[in-house]
Amino acid sequence: MQTRRMKATKASSQRVIADLEELATLTSNERGAQRVAWGPVWRTTREWFAAKLQDELGITPYRDGAANLWATLPGASSRSIVLGSHLDSVPGGGWLDGCLGVLAGLEALRLAKAAGTRTMTLHLVDWADEEGARFGRSLMGSAASAGALDAYGELAHLTDRQGVGLPAALEENGVSLDSVETAAAYFRTLDAAAYLELHIEQGPVLEDMKAPVGVVLGTMGVERYNVRFVGQAAHSGAAPIHLRKDAFLAAAQFALACREISVKHSGKTPKTRVVATCGVVKVEPNFVTAVPGSTEISIDLRALDAKVLKRMLADARAAAAKAAKTHLVKVAWSPLLHITPRLFDERLMTIIREAVTEVTGRAPEIPSGPLHDAAEMAAVCPTAMVFAQSSPGISHTRLEDTPRSALDKSIRAFLISVDRTMAMLGAAPPRA
Amino acid sequence: MQTRRMKATKASSQRVIADLEELATLTSNERGAQRVAWGPVWRTTREWFAAKLQDELGITPYRDGAANLWATLPGASSRSIVLGSHLDSVPGGGWLDGCLGVLAGLEALRLAKAAGTRTMTLHLVDWADEEGARFGRSLMGSAASAGALDAYGELAHLTDRQGVGLPAALEENGVSLDSVETAAAYFRTLDAAAYLELHIEQGPVLEDMKAPVGVVLGTMGVERYNVRFVGQAAHSGAAPIHLRKDAFLAAAQFALACREISVKHSGKTPKTRVVATCGVVKVEPNFVTAVPGSTEISIDLRALDAKVLKRMLADARAAAAKAAKTHLVKVAWSPLLHITPRLFDERLMTIIREAVTEVTGRAPEIPSGPLHDAAEMAAVCPTAMVFAQSSPGISHTRLEDTPRSALDKSIRAFLISVDRTMAMLGAAPPRA
Repeated sequence: MQTRRMKATKASSQRVIADLEELATLTSNERGAQRVAWGPVWRTTREWFAAKLQDELGITPYRDGAANLWATLPGASSRSIVLGSHLDSVPGGGWLDGCLGVLAGLEALRLAKAAGTRTMTLHLVDWADEEGARFGRSLMGSAASAGALDAYGELAHLTDRQGVGLPAALEENGVSLDSVETAAAYFRTLDAAAYLELHIEQGPVLEDMKAPVGVVLGTMGVERYNVRFVGQAAHSGAAPIHLRKDAFLAAAQFALACREISVKHSGKTPKTRVVATCGVVKVEPNFVTAVPGSTEISIDLRALDAKVLKRMLADARAAAAKAAKTHLVKVAWSPLLHITPRLFDERLMTIIREAVTEVTGRAPEIPSGPLHDAAEMAAVCPTAMVFAQSSPGISHTRLEDTPRSALDKSIRAFLISVDRTMAMLGAAPPRA
Repeated sequence: MQTRRMKATKASSQRVIADLEELATLTSNERGAQRVAWGPVWRTTREWFAAKLQDELGITPYRDGAANLWATLPGASSRSIVLGSHLDSVPGGGWLDGCLGVLAGLEALRLAKAAGTRTMTLHLVDWADEEGARFGRSLMGSAASAGALDAYGELAHLTDRQGVGLPAALEENGVSLDSVETAAAYFRTLDAAAYLELHIEQGPVLEDMKAPVGVVLGTMGVERYNVRFVGQAAHSGAAPIHLRKDAFLAAAQFALACREISVKHSGKTPKTRVVATCGVVKVEPNFVTAVPGSTEISIDLRALDAKVLKRMLADARAAAAKAAKTHLVKVAWSPLLHITPRLFDERLMTIIREAVTEVTGRAPEIPSGPLHDAAEMAAVCPTAMVFAQSSPGISHTRLEDTPRSALDKSIRAFLISVDRTMAMLGAAPPRA
């Protein structure tokens, strides 16, 4: 048996865009999207999505123990392709971040159903709490499914800004720390042969390349630390420069050095580009008349190549030590986050490369700096992603957008990729 | 008639130190001195001080319209020497900041009274709200007396952190904006021929020179600005380095450049040293995953030479423009404070130089970076100051201190200076 091919036309992408606009009307306000996970607008979003699945496809979605929402279109074999992304958003987020992938996946289900029989099963998943906007733990649902989440260790103590604990917010949604830990077992029953995700880039790279759609090479690894410089507060008038221990100047020197480190370790192509960011700066005592006695600064280093990332971190540590020595202060590092780079599947990337070229005439390859649910999936099954251009190249704001023609092309490239993946994997014998 | 000479002995300085210890017991807690102007501990302090004046010298102090407290020991002429400093403190301040000068002045009155007749009148003043700790306007009382305060323009709108207006706090102390404006007229009636003040250095310069007492050259001028760099916030993973507009990196470059500017414009002696300080840094959005879209940084430039200060400011402006250009951001300057350098009186400095040499064997000359009431007085009458060494060289903390032997020497040098000033001015004909 062979799966009949899906037809990804402009009518398909127009349906997805119409769904996205309907969702924005339902769940955005003048400050942007408000689909924060575990809250009422997010629940409304999922009711709207479940009704669409029911009404258009006759599918009643299944909610796993981590609140991931699964829609299944069975095939001759239970061996499956998983399509997914997330309907949740940050407060005041963009209209495409996450829901583009889910609603393009919905269209894939529509096309697959219209095409008739299938050798393989198709799953569409709306991952729970990708953003971590309220409790600070992103990729919660997909990490749970990938078996990469220690619910008690990582979630039990988290609270939001109002002091509400994550366990209480889960309970409001019929979820518990125990049930979260069952999501991985459910995922293993799906026999996933591939995971595909369409997402908005959330950065300026494709726009800068004038490319509407991109092939994602993987998600960058992250080394994130809090770096604390401690000197001696002093009066701005009374303390001569040569007797100061100015913690902020040490942090300033460190931040500029980290920029140089990222330039030094970057190659010329998007694939080999690395980044370093000092995003949080806290100076004390923070008075106009006070030489800063201490300064905390965050450093977030990212690279697709784990070896490069390791060298960047070593260079950053040396730069901090040098800055501390120059300004006669002490420095201490506290780890905040360590994420391994996740490279996507070569066979799936080849399919996506061809689909993107077919729709746009070229197929630029870029890594993803931001994390995605696909990063969790890459650890447990062959995974690949399609990026739609961001313009402007910014994220987590209502201004985040994709030009309509790029949106159309990204959706079509994704749908073609789903079709080809099914054709390839359906024709091949299952892996041992 | 000639004034009989005052005898400044170790017994004098021991009396002053005993008074300082008594005051600390009365008005400090485990976090330091709590004599914040306009509050209950400050009122207690002044009651204690007024009782001493009454009991020991039979003087009932006069409170002028700005709440400055005046004690007068009349002489044959109403032409006068004014001694002063401030009993108020920051919250959690040091035990010597301000009250050292007032209580050394009290001892000068004791000695002068014991010595008998005087050609000139002696005034001792406890200036109101030198610190500006609660409402942010320092030197309030002395500025009012110098006619350098626009009470309605500068004070009417000020509030403390609890939202209490300065006019309401004044009213609690029997003072009004109208009465504040009468202080200058009262001061003019005093016919002040000299103003002398003893103060703790509040910095590490004398300690670094191993000098217990110093001659103060004047107070540095100040140019203080808020400098705002505005770029574009972006995701730390998604935005490649070459497409960023990182406002914090521009601010970091600016801060390091300002340090270089202070080194460049500093001479080798304490007199010609200048300082530049970035004390306040505010980054937005201040997330670990966000390239800073804007950064506000304060710059506080100080120099004793007005021409040097002007050149420093020009260099700082050029450095900010260069940093903005390098990091593709915009920059805007908002003025916070402009203070002209105030050079002290040469004749009075000669007297102090001799007195300090007599007591300590040397007379190092340093400018004051912090402002003092003497800076306001310098604009309206010949003024000079004596500094007692700080060890450690920090201020506005309970740790602020002066070694006992330096404290003793500074008090004696001050008392000798008062005596010699009176001898010089009392012997000379009054100015036309």
